[in-house]
Amino acid sequence: MSGTLYGVGLGPGDPDLMTLRAARLIGAAKVVAFPTLEGGASFARSIAAHLIAKDADEIAMDIPMTVERAPAQKAYDAGAAKIAARLDAGDDVVVLCEGDPFFYGSFMYLFARLADRFQTEIVPGVTSVTACAARARSPLVARNERLTVLPGPLPEDELRARIEGAESVAIMKVGRHLPKIRGVIEALGLVDKATYIERASLPEEVVLPLADAPEKAPYFSMILLAKGNDPWL
Amino acid sequence: MSGTLYGVGLGPGDPDLMTLRAARLIGAAKVVAFPTLEGGASFARSIAAHLIAKDADEIAMDIPMTVERAPAQKAYDAGAAKIAARLDAGDDVVVLCEGDPFFYGSFMYLFARLADRFQTEIVPGVTSVTACAARARSPLVARNERLTVLPGPLPEDELRARIEGAESVAIMKVGRHLPKIRGVIEALGLVDKATYIERASLPEEVVLPLADAPEKAPYFSMILLAKGNDPWL
Repeated sequence: MSGTLYGVGLGPGDPDLMTLRAARLIGAAKVVAFPTLEGGASFARSIAAHLIAKDADEIAMDIPMTVERAPAQKAYDAGAAKIAARLDAGDDVVVLCEGDPFFYGSFMYLFARLADRFQTEIVPGVTSVTACAARARSPLVARNERLTVLPGPLPEDELRARIEGAESVAIMKVGRHLPKIRGVIEALGLVDKATYIERASLPEEVVLPLADAPEKAPYFSMILLAKGNDPWL
Repeated sequence: MSGTLYGVGLGPGDPDLMTLRAARLIGAAKVVAFPTLEGGASFARSIAAHLIAKDADEIAMDIPMTVERAPAQKAYDAGAAKIAARLDAGDDVVVLCEGDPFFYGSFMYLFARLADRFQTEIVPGVTSVTACAARARSPLVARNERLTVLPGPLPEDELRARIEGAESVAIMKVGRHLPKIRGVIEALGLVDKATYIERASLPEEVVLPLADAPEKAPYFSMILLAKGNDPWL
């Protein structure tokens, strides 16, 4: 009988923000798999490292960060093949996923390759959006308010149009797109409603009004816009 | 010295989807507070019931579900006053929040009343959006895709406009708005991309293609629209 594939969300980074189910699955895992950036460290693995059994087998998937998609696709093909071999042999495989597996997560690429052949369970996790809101002390949405999540690489016009259509906006993957995003928010007169957050929930976390944000932002940074003028009272 | 106010997200309903931090805070709490619907059961309390110490003090806040806001505001005033009395006396108070405290959560009303006077920590939780996606086996967003979260009570035109502006849409609080929402999705030709989910992660969970959804939906139901035609490969 084949093993089960688990896509396990780890939350935003603080190991304490992992779910009970995630912690239990990781602790019991005989095989864990995780993405690494071109052979470097794995953020996902670092969140769960203290829970992984010493004798667990580890499948590291080196994912190249290139603009063309073919190299990453090949890397996911190779990772999926290694995972499939273990599932075929009857072992469960726990894939470690930063945040939530289905929210901008690399697990989706494994899911597309393996979920029709193997029993699969997705364990949802705390996303960086609510983790950032918690750390920024910035409520997201209440009652009939709309929340829109936008990736920072989107073109300026698209960002502007979508920011206008929601009371609350989370802009992900800010990184090198910070100057463009800041420009859009300034043009909309919303700078005083915007908070910049880096590495939420980690010891090196940064939370600042957008006006005081650094010139350079890492990939794992976010801007939260709380436009709703609802006093939550 | 005053106590600390904790707004603790409990996740979508399965107690196993609570974070480690939430479970630890609840287990150690001397005072817990939670909303109830007009004196009835508390969904939040039911998720965490097994963790609450037998001798913990419980502050139940009966929140009336009326269209006018004044009765609910009065109920939050009263709940905040009871919580403030315990905080003033030096006790920590753990407020139990379904899902995430800042994502359509009643905790925001307590936060608005108390956070400027007392030390406050928000513990984010798994939202119903990613929990529903996990159970529906429906990836939400990858790469530069946009996600929009819309409350079902919004007017038809507004729903249509916002659905058109995102690859992935979560429509919350479907309840009695199901016929209207279904109409909008039919008019946009997107029925085959839509999944209906009730009480995700609970034993009584329902996951169905929208075409097979029941005529009547409970308040805790959601429709997920996965419009992106990306094969995740």
